This record gives sequence, structure tokens and C-alpha cells, in this order.
Amino acid sequence: MQRMDWSALDASARTAALQRPVQAVAGQTRAVVSDVIDDVRARGDVALRELTRRLDGVSLSTFEVTPEEFEAAESAVAETLVVAMRDAAARIERFHAEGMARAYAVETAPGVTCERVIRPVRRVGLYVPAGSAPLPSTALMLGVPAKLAGCREVVLCTPPRRDGSADPAVLVAARLTGVHRVFKLGGAQAIAAMAYGTGSVPRCDKLFGPGNGFVTEAKQQVAQAGVAAIDMPAGPSEVLVIADEGAEAAFVAADLLSQAEHGPDSQVLLLSDSGDLLDRVQSELETQLEALPRAGIASEALAQSRLILVDALEDAFAISNDYAPEHLILALRAPRDWLDRVEAAGSVFLGDYTPEALGDYCSGTNHVLPTAGAARAYSGVSVASFQNFVSVQSATAAGIGVIGGCAIRLAEAEGLEAHAQAVRMRLRALASQERAA
Amino acid sequence: MQRMDWSALDASARTAALQRPVQAVAGQTRAVVSDVIDDVRARGDVALRELTRRLDGVSLSTFEVTPEEFEAAESAVAETLVVAMRDAAARIERFHAEGMARAYAVETAPGVTCERVIRPVRRVGLYVPAGSAPLPSTALMLGVPAKLAGCREVVLCTPPRRDGSADPAVLVAARLTGVHRVFKLGGAQAIAAMAYGTGSVPRCDKLFGPGNGFVTEAKQQVAQAGVAAIDMPAGPSEVLVIADEGAEAAFVAADLLSQAEHGPDSQVLLLSDSGDLLDRVQSELETQLEALPRAGIASEALAQSRLILVDALEDAFAISNDYAPEHLILALRAPRDWLDRVEAAGSVFLGDYTPEALGDYCSGTNHVLPTAGAARAYSGVSVASFQNFVSVQSATAAGIGVIGGCAIRLAEAEGLEAHAQAVRMRLRALASQERAA
Repeated sequence: MQRMDWSALDASARTAALQRPVQAVAGQTRAVVSDVIDDVRARGDVALRELTRRLDGVSLSTFEVTPEEFEAAESAVAETLVVAMRDAAARIERFHAEGMARAYAVETAPGVTCERVIRPVRRVGLYVPAGSAPLPSTALMLGVPAKLAGCREVVLCTPPRRDGSADPAVLVAARLTGVHRVFKLGGAQAIAAMAYGTGSVPRCDKLFGPGNGFVTEAKQQVAQAGVAAIDMPAGPSEVLVIADEGAEAAFVAADLLSQAEHGPDSQVLLLSDSGDLLDRVQSELETQLEALPRAGIASEALAQSRLILVDALEDAFAISNDYAPEHLILALRAPRDWLDRVEAAGSVFLGDYTPEALGDYCSGTNHVLPTAGAARAYSGVSVASFQNFVSVQSATAAGIGVIGGCAIRLAEAEGLEAHAQAVRMRLRALASQERAA
Repeated sequence: MQRMDWSALDASARTAALQRPVQAVAGQTRAVVSDVIDDVRARGDVALRELTRRLDGVSLSTFEVTPEEFEAAESAVAETLVVAMRDAAARIERFHAEGMARAYAVETAPGVTCERVIRPVRRVGLYVPAGSAPLPSTALMLGVPAKLAGCREVVLCTPPRRDGSADPAVLVAARLTGVHRVFKLGGAQAIAAMAYGTGSVPRCDKLFGPGNGFVTEAKQQVAQAGVAAIDMPAGPSEVLVIADEGAEAAFVAADLLSQAEHGPDSQVLLLSDSGDLLDRVQSELETQLEALPRAGIASEALAQSRLILVDALEDAFAISNDYAPEHLILALRAPRDWLDRVEAAGSVFLGDYTPEALGDYCSGTNHVLPTAGAARAYSGVSVASFQNFVSVQSATAAGIGVIGGCAIRLAEAEGLEAHAQAVRMRLRALASQERAA
């Protein structure tokens, strides 16, 4: 890890210090993904079969997981894991349900009612990666809010394994949350299938979930084309830790490593006003790293990462707000007192006993979060991500009498005469009805 | 307008009937916009000055509207228009404030608290077009929710007029809603300036507002590059009207025309189970069209538009839900009884006395709405569009004792050992503290 003293850096060194690992989608990735999408769009299931054979190394004649496969998965998964998934799902449901928006109506003028009604997005597609490891937790994080929203059709794609089966834990997680249909499809071809639909995969209105560079590029391309909406742009996972002198170095190091093991492009930042704490964390990192099975990945990520000494914790919060981290850990003695200073972050972890791993799995918050600085203007997945908010207005004859003049005046100012006319015509009709009465 | 009988159409004719006017962004538009963005990014204000001279035909040395210009605008705008804008803003504020999300906290397990806190997006950029006519109403629709959200910096760009001034009504609307800074900049260059920042224009985290093909392409490009978020993808404006036998043909025709006058690519659809109503509307359209100043634009749009006879109103709702219109007018005798059937639409207008013009200006709902079918998975602008929802979790020592095992079990299943280790380390520390006590 690189160690630096913030107050000694000039502006350009500061910018460089907060630079994220460049995930430059090479023109080649873009072109490969675009070809895959065009192929799936044109040839549907035939293309999916060819791509799955070529890219996943497995020949499948059909993709949809059958009831028999679900049953086999249920017997294959250890009972302790099923219980853990069920507990996690219950807490995720508890937290997400409490935050659901409500419909409401307001009388904005006598006789004029404005309302918000809420409708589930009709058909949603969830992507659950299984690259370096299958991620049943992601199936829970997407499936639970989709169920709470009441989406009519919930489709999930996850890559097939070499033997042609899907990861059993992912299947059990999908069933737990009420996902309707699961397909053994991965990569850009899965995204293309859900965006355009094929003979076997239904077309979806919105696509969710993390994935590798090909998956995220495919999501961007179908969103850009206006074919399907997506949850958010995605980049490599990242954590920023703000720790004070009293923080437990072993805990901080463990949290940094649990981010670093995600992938070589994960980013890890530690900010502290204590040089001593930085020393202790650095030495803990070396010790703990050795014991990790994914030490190779983690040490690559750590090479990209920084330990930054700041003059005061206030400076650390200013840096964090500019960086807008996906995960923000406050390893502080009074973390709640600092929470008001957080302006932009995906999810925040307070204190020594709230490691990021709790939020990743089972505290109840969502782990599908904005990365790469997107937290400046995007939020993590919630039930609202699966809903449409539709405004509704109704004016009575009296109501248009009250606000009609206002609309006419504004329409005239904008030179939109037909708008003014549509209102005037009603007012005239009402006036002549009154005269007749 | 094209007249058709839905039950007589085969599947491909039905698809064709609901085809939106193609807004194929020619490769040329894409390249032009990309060049403008690169230029503004590289040369900042110098590029803005050149582009404004070339594209808006006016030489400006500075772009920001001065206090003197605001004062001049206030004396230039008629008092009746100021009152109309103030009234509209008050109703917009009333409706939007009522729908604001609240922060909340839930104990998801003993000792584990999950929360949602809400933060304004720090710096937002609003675009107010002034192509065929300046749109002060759009300044209200964007400025009011930005103010309610409490955004720290609210910037607005609107194209300069030939004499180098900004439209006075737009300036007054901007002031009414508390916009902090206004710049006389239009087109793709305005979007580039707000996305990347220049010497004079601050960089913004999220960009809002409608615009012509260049503006919307520029918004897409900066969003795709991950530089700034945007409110939603945008296309030409559109309305779908569902009318029954008892509808007032003159009103329906007026509403169709008020949509058609927006631009030649506006789309207008009328669905009814009454052939007689369709006849009457068609004849009303011809009569009313003649009297309109923007008759040329409106008749071009009408040429693209369709009157569709359906067997039953239920069919009309099925069609509407697939089409997902920006505006949906229910010119029905009991419109509220049908509201539950609406699954996807930007904004809904109930009954004979609620013309779209009311929502466009002053009922209280937002007029920045998803077009081109985006209403299947996007919602109109609201206060939430200007906010970040940040999740927060905190576990006590007891709390991690309750849910730590669940996290470890899931981390093990996903092969993420460092995640498991970060939790185990806390549990071990707590166990040894207990033994010591």
C-alpha cells in the first residue's frame, strides 16, 4: 500500500491519490459486447446456445432451470446455509419494507387533486454473477425488493457451471425470494437475452445486478439504446475507512482485506489522523494477508490502495465526500457524531463491531451499491428501484375554474396556443352551462 | 391522422401502429456532440465562447447572469405572469413536498440497527430549453424539487437570445425557486460545461431537463462516460388518450392538438371503443387546427398519429400499458374506476376537466416525465431525483454476536474468506474479553 501525508500533497498529487483504478473498457470489449448483443437479438436462442458453448464451455439445449433442478439444489445445499440465507432474507425484507414509499393525494387547489400512485415495474431481470465464486447473497439482495415491489415477472440469470448445472445455493436463494424463472445464462449474452427477449427468455423492462466488465458494458449498451433500464452503472468494488487513534488495527486491516479480496481492481483507502494507527494497520495487513486463500488477488488490490494521514478527521470527511465511496467505514470512538458530515456514500458502517461483511450479507441493507463515485448522485438498490411512481391529477369543473387562468397565462408566455386553447375551451363550456342554468 | 380498427390488425400491424416516430440519432449528431463535449472539456470557457458565437449567433464574453440582469428581467416580466408563476410554484411545492421520503431506522436484530439517511445531491445542473419558445415552466418544475431537496449548489443553463440576454421569464422563474446561478448557455455545450466544469461554470453531479436532440444526446454521452448522472433518457413528447362514447370531442381534439404543437415529432394516440367519438374528434381536429398559430408543426405531428378503434376499453388499457405513454388522458365517464388498470405511464389526467395543460403548468405534478416508453421503468422528476439515499448500519458487540454467524456462513459459501475472517476476529475478541471479565 502507498502511504501518504495529505497536507504535504499539492492539488495534482491529491487528485492522483484519489484516482480510482482505471476500468478503461477497451474498444475491443465494447465491440465484443456489441457483437454478442446483435447476435442474440438476431438469432435468439440459437445464438445463446452457441455463445454458451463458446464462452462458458458447456452445451445446453435449454436454459431454464426445471423444477427437478430446483429440488436437486435444495437437497444439495447444507441446512446451515439454508438457515443463514433465510435469516439474511428476513432482515433484508424487514429493512427494505420499512422504507417503502406510500401513495398519497393532495388537494393543491379547491377542486384540484394531485396524487402519486405506485406500480411495480412489470418485468424485471436479475443478474447473479458466478465468476470467481457464485453469489447467492446477490440473489437475496435483488430478489427480496423485487418481491416487496410486487413485480409481475421476476427473471434471474446466472452462469452455468461446467457440468451444465446452476449453483445450488443461488437456486435456493432465488426460490426463497420468490423469483419466478431462472435461466442458466451468463455474461453479455444473458443481459442481451433479458433486454431483447428470445424464444425462451422473456423480455424485461429493467435489469439489475453486478457483473464483470462484459456484463456491465452490456447493461450500459442496452440502457443507452433505450431497450431496457438498468439499476446503476457499475465498477469495481471499493471501501474507504476513516479511523481514529483508538481504532483496533486488526479490525481495520481485516476490513480492508475483505474488500481487497473481491478482485485485483478493488480499491481500498484508509484515512486517519493518527500516524501510529496507520503503522499498526500496515503491519497487521502483512500478517493477516499471509493467511488468506485469496492472498494473490488481495495483494494486487492492496498495491493500488492508499493509507493517508490527515491533519484532522474533518479533512478525512471532506476527502470522502469528494470520493463518494461505495462503502464507508467509520472506525471512530463516536461514529454517530460524525454521521451528519457524510454527504455521499453508498452504505456506511458505524464503529468497531460493524464490519462491511455484515452489510454485504445480512444486516438488512442492500449490497448492490453505487461504485466509482456514482454515489454522488445514485443510491443503492431499494424497493423503489423496482417501482414506477406515476402522478395523477383530476380537476373538477370548479377546480379548472380556480387554476385554469394560471395555465393559460403560462401557455401564452411560452407561445403554446393550443395548450391555452384546451383550457379556455373548458372554461367557456362551463360558463355557457352556468348561463343556461 | 391514421384511423385503424385494432381487432382487424395482425400482430405486425399492431406493432407498427404503436411505433414511435424514430428519433434515430444519426451517427453525425453523435459525432458532432462528441466533438463539442471534447472541445469544452479541453478548452473550457474559450470553447464555450466560440461555440456560442457559432451556434447561437451571439458573442458573449461572460455567461453568468448578473444581478443587474436579474433586476432588468423582473421589470420586464408582466405582473400577471409573475403571479401565475408564483401560484404554479406554490402548488408544485405543495405536491412535491408531500411526497418526500423520510429517514428511518429499524432494529433488524437485537443490537443491529439499519437506517436510511437522506442527503441532497450536492451540485445539480438544470437545463431550460428556449428553442421554439422559452420554457419558464421547466425552470419551476426543476427548481422547486431542487430547493426542497436542499441541494447545496443549483446551476441553471438556458440558451442566450440573439441580443445576448436570457429570457426574462426564465430568469424570474429561476429566482422564484432559489436557483443559485444562471448561465446563458445552450445546446450540447451547456451540458458539457455542467458535466465537466469550466473556469466559469461549476461542475455538477447530476443534470436535469428536456432539450432538443443535441442536448439529450449530450446528456446520454456524459452519463455513459460516468461523468455526471442524468434525470432520465428523453425523447419527443407524447400523449395517449383513452376516450369513451360520452367524451366531449372538442375537448379531446384540443388535448391532442396541445400535444401535437410541441413539435413535428410529437406523438398523439387516441383509443376509443366508440367509432362515433373517433368521427367527431377527427372533424373537430380539422376545425381547431386551422385556428392555431403553430398549425404547421401540429399537422406534421398529426400525420404521425393514430385514432384506434378498440372492441372494449379493457383493450385500450392493455395497449396503453405496453406503450407506456408519457401522458395518459382518461376521457372517461368514471375515470377513477379505471385507474387501477394503469401499469405504466408518466402522468395521468382524469376526466373531461383535466386537460394535459394543467399538469404541464400548474396542477402541482411534475412535467419532466419519461418518454419513448421509458415509463415502463422510469418515473417523472420528483424530490427524490435530487437526493441520495444512504444506508447506515451499526452493530453493538451483542449485535454482531447475534448475526455474525450468519455472515460467516454466507461468506464461506461464497469463498470469501477475508469477509468471514473480519467477523470471526470480532467474535474472538469479544469472547476473550468475556473470559477476562
